[in-house]
Amino acid sequence: MKVGLFGFGRAGHDVAEEIINDPDCTLVWVVRKSQEKNHKFASDFLGHPNDPQGEFFCMEEAMDPDFFKKNPVDAIIDFSSPQGLYEYARAADEGIHIVSAISHYEDREIAFLKELSKKTAVLHSANITLGINFLLVASQILQQIVPNADIEVIEEHFREKKGKSGSALKIAQKLGLDPVEHVNSIRVGGIVGKHEVVFGLPNQTIRIAHDAISRKAFGAGALFAARALKGKKTGFFTMEEIMRKAFFKNIHVNAILT
Amino acid sequence: MKVGLFGFGRAGHDVAEEIINDPDCTLVWVVRKSQEKNHKFASDFLGHPNDPQGEFFCMEEAMDPDFFKKNPVDAIIDFSSPQGLYEYARAADEGIHIVSAISHYEDREIAFLKELSKKTAVLHSANITLGINFLLVASQILQQIVPNADIEVIEEHFREKKGKSGSALKIAQKLGLDPVEHVNSIRVGGIVGKHEVVFGLPNQTIRIAHDAISRKAFGAGALFAARALKGKKTGFFTMEEIMRKAFFKNIHVNAILT
Amino acid sequence: MKVGLFGFGRAGHDVAEEIINDPDCTLVWVVRKSQEKNHKFASDFLGHPNDPQGEFFCMEEAMDPDFFKKNPVDAIIDFSSPQGLYEYARAADEGIHIVSAISHYEDREIAFLKELSKKTAVLHSANITLGINFLLVASQILQQIVPNADIEVIEEHFREKKGKSGSALKIAQKLGLDPVEHVNSIRVGGIVGKHEVVFGLPNQTIRIAHDAISRKAFGAGALFAARALKGKKTGFFTMEEIMRKAFFKNIHVNAILT
Amino acid sequence: MKVGLFGFGRAGHDVAEEIINDPDCTLVWVVRKSQEKNHKFASDFLGHPNDPQGEFFCMEEAMDPDFFKKNPVDAIIDFSSPQGLYEYARAADEGIHIVSAISHYEDREIAFLKELSKKTAVLHSANITLGINFLLVASQILQQIVPNADIEVIEEHFREKKGKSGSALKIAQKLGLDPVEHVNSIRVGGIVGKHEVVFGLPNQTIRIAHDAISRKAFGAGALFAARALKGKKTGFFTMEEIMRKAFFKNIHVNAILT
Repeated sequence: MKVGLFGFGRAGHDVAEEIINDPDCTLVWVVRKSQEKNHKFASDFLGHPNDPQGEFFCMEEAMDPDFFKKNPVDAIIDFSSPQGLYEYARAADEGIHIVSAISHYEDREIAFLKELSKKTAVLHSANITLGINFLLVASQILQQIVPNADIEVIEEHFREKKGKSGSALKIAQKLGLDPVEHVNSIRVGGIVGKHEVVFGLPNQTIRIAHDAISRKAFGAGALFAARALKGKKTGFFTMEEIMRKAFFKNIHVNAILT
Repeated sequence: MKVGLFGFGRAGHDVAEEIINDPDCTLVWVVRKSQEKNHKFASDFLGHPNDPQGEFFCMEEAMDPDFFKKNPVDAIIDFSSPQGLYEYARAADEGIHIVSAISHYEDREIAFLKELSKKTAVLHSANITLGINFLLVASQILQQIVPNADIEVIEEHFREKKGKSGSALKIAQKLGLDPVEHVNSIRVGGIVGKHEVVFGLPNQTIRIAHDAISRKAFGAGALFAARALKGKKTGFFTMEEIMRKAFFKNIHVNAILT
Repeated sequence: MKVGLFGFGRAGHDVAEEIINDPDCTLVWVVRKSQEKNHKFASDFLGHPNDPQGEFFCMEEAMDPDFFKKNPVDAIIDFSSPQGLYEYARAADEGIHIVSAISHYEDREIAFLKELSKKTAVLHSANITLGINFLLVASQILQQIVPNADIEVIEEHFREKKGKSGSALKIAQKLGLDPVEHVNSIRVGGIVGKHEVVFGLPNQTIRIAHDAISRKAFGAGALFAARALKGKKTGFFTMEEIMRKAFFKNIHVNAILT
Repeated sequence: MKVGLFGFGRAGHDVAEEIINDPDCTLVWVVRKSQEKNHKFASDFLGHPNDPQGEFFCMEEAMDPDFFKKNPVDAIIDFSSPQGLYEYARAADEGIHIVSAISHYEDREIAFLKELSKKTAVLHSANITLGINFLLVASQILQQIVPNADIEVIEEHFREKKGKSGSALKIAQKLGLDPVEHVNSIRVGGIVGKHEVVFGLPNQTIRIAHDAISRKAFGAGALFAARALKGKKTGFFTMEEIMRKAFFKNIHVNAILT
């Protein structure tokens, strides 16, 4: 799979590393704001000087109108900024799939992405790790199986993180929990990111937990999403839906039971 | 739902308590080995003297051939012994459902249960808690979603517990893990029972964990199973299948994705 | 060690069980409010019919003025009510040690206990388990070793428990943490009681955690306290001080370092 | 505090970062094997181009006999190789303190370090994080307080890590536990390093756990050790002893109790 990346900040940097390390993927190019390093190899910058994949940096402003035709990829992964999406509108015309992991879009940007999804397959998810989306889907299923369970979300992050985590809020929303009451935020030291959903029953407790070790987990999620879009012509998807489908495919219910 | 219970040992005792506490269930009778307390009320023994449900003890040997006709129930829950099942063969003729939570059957008893399942719905599960079965099903699904994950099972129990836990071995078997290598058994103090399945990916870890607080959790599982059999005429089921079906019913996959 | 117990509610019941099970202790009597079971054996009630220790129930109102002379013990353990202490004032005259685990005393009762401590050794602790007191002391030491660490307290209890746990509030107070900000209370299902103190440093996290399995843990703590008072004539102690002393005795610092 | 660093491999790299980030420390130089980057600034390499602390790289072979006189520091921190210590023998003559975090020394090197400790203060610890040493000391104290507790060590690391962790083995040795029986090693994915000591009592469980987030934790430990050596003329120390002393200083036992 040939991938183009938008964004080379802290997350983009780690995601590029993850794409380069994936034996089935090639990072063809990285589009970034800063002019610095224009046309240099991302892999060189990431400490893989002897194994360039041909990927290069391109400054956003310097993008040729035919950039996507001249530098074709199967999917664009976007870890840039809420405005990044306007730069790859033309990619949708080429049928290039779009995976956006931008956290905070305005309604206008969501509407624009949905427009693009009429021309190509688009996936947007603010919480793109496999782990968080596993929590999201497994928790919703478990809640329906044990509707009388008490549920709390505990999330732990580094001290500087402001507010409750977006992933925790999403989980709470999907489970119908008041976030003020039921999302417990621990802010200490340098914890990368931990989420735990606790289901309390009178005689047993079930916990589903996700520990992020590095931001490269975003990259693994984005690639999982990009692979899930393969073969699709158009449509707007979320990572939760992809995960839900993965559950569905792998349940293998005995015919006698259905 | 009217329930009859076989067995009044440590587990049976707690299961009776759980059935009595369930507002939708009535414990009609308890069959036990010991003659002691014959025809007394189980609820009295359990400290509910003012709220008898009409349930009574019956010594196994003293069972009338028409016992199940005279004392009809919707389901029998069996926490007695591997040989207990021979006492309720006639219940199958009456269409009474059977939920057996016996841990160690010989092949002969399994074969006998399967015979009964031609006449009524029978469920057998050595690990009947909701939590363990949630772990079992969720873990198998997750393994297929992230086939490259390393998986370990950690189980913690009270110091006297011999050997690896049956639930942990079952999880390992279903996940194709060598139990000698991948089931880690902690034996300390008075831990009631904890199972954790750890999925390790390069940049994230996912954990699904179950803590038993008391053996009453077996009762909740048995009642869940009994309810799941409602409306079935015949067939042999396991708690894992019931859980798998519960997942299936609650996934709600968007049509566009399937 | 001969022990007399005040209180036979839920906690007292479990504490009696723990005292009876301790090979070095004898439960001589239990004083309780209810007349029911007066002069019967507590061990019988607890399911040890064949192994009475000679302990018997005594109704509070029926206590003879010479009760403590006629029925001597080494220590009284009090799990009754805030007013229970007025019943054993005379025990202090006999030099009987007092271990009170009452949670909520008014100032008046604390003053009364301190009066008694001029005549005998008295220990009072609202949180008498070994585990909680280990957390309390170890956390204070660690805080001084890593003063820049961020600290959070997480406590988990059964859904019905009102307010933040007293133990968690005590830990927060001792660590100088605002409880509104830093004590995170999880209320779900039937969790008996879990406390965790999380120390976050930029590159590592340290956790000290205590899981209560049953209220018998109170009994083990009370007996530990009673043993620690041995040989003391008078004085007012807390479990935290006893634990602090136990730390002190067991550090074994190399002379070169001090 | 002025610090010189030996070693600039994966750990040394992270330790340098930690020293540079500590407002009370200055990294004066880094001695490393490779000629690459000789006399360049370490801080530049680490992405702090605008904040050089004056530190520079020096190739091991190129070290001037008067290097330590000409480039004085308060302490050397060694994360190089077992043979690194022979390069800084002369530093001991200058009274420069030595903190070695080398994991696997032969007896010959330990003997050499002890020789150096007659001239200056030397600390060696294969497990230099604050967290591991807190576990080590707190566990030993707790074991003596509750000698009947069952103890297990659980350690989790990335899949490639061979054998049981050195820190876990050290903890087991100090607690008198057979490591084959009682050290449980989980190897999955990319877990940086987690150690947990579980104390099981009949009615409660106490856990002391350490999660490493990054190897920079080694740097924090080494700096803590270097500070603890301040004012010492000579002597051979371990991190465990330093931690033990820190416990001792911070217990504050009431005089009445001792």
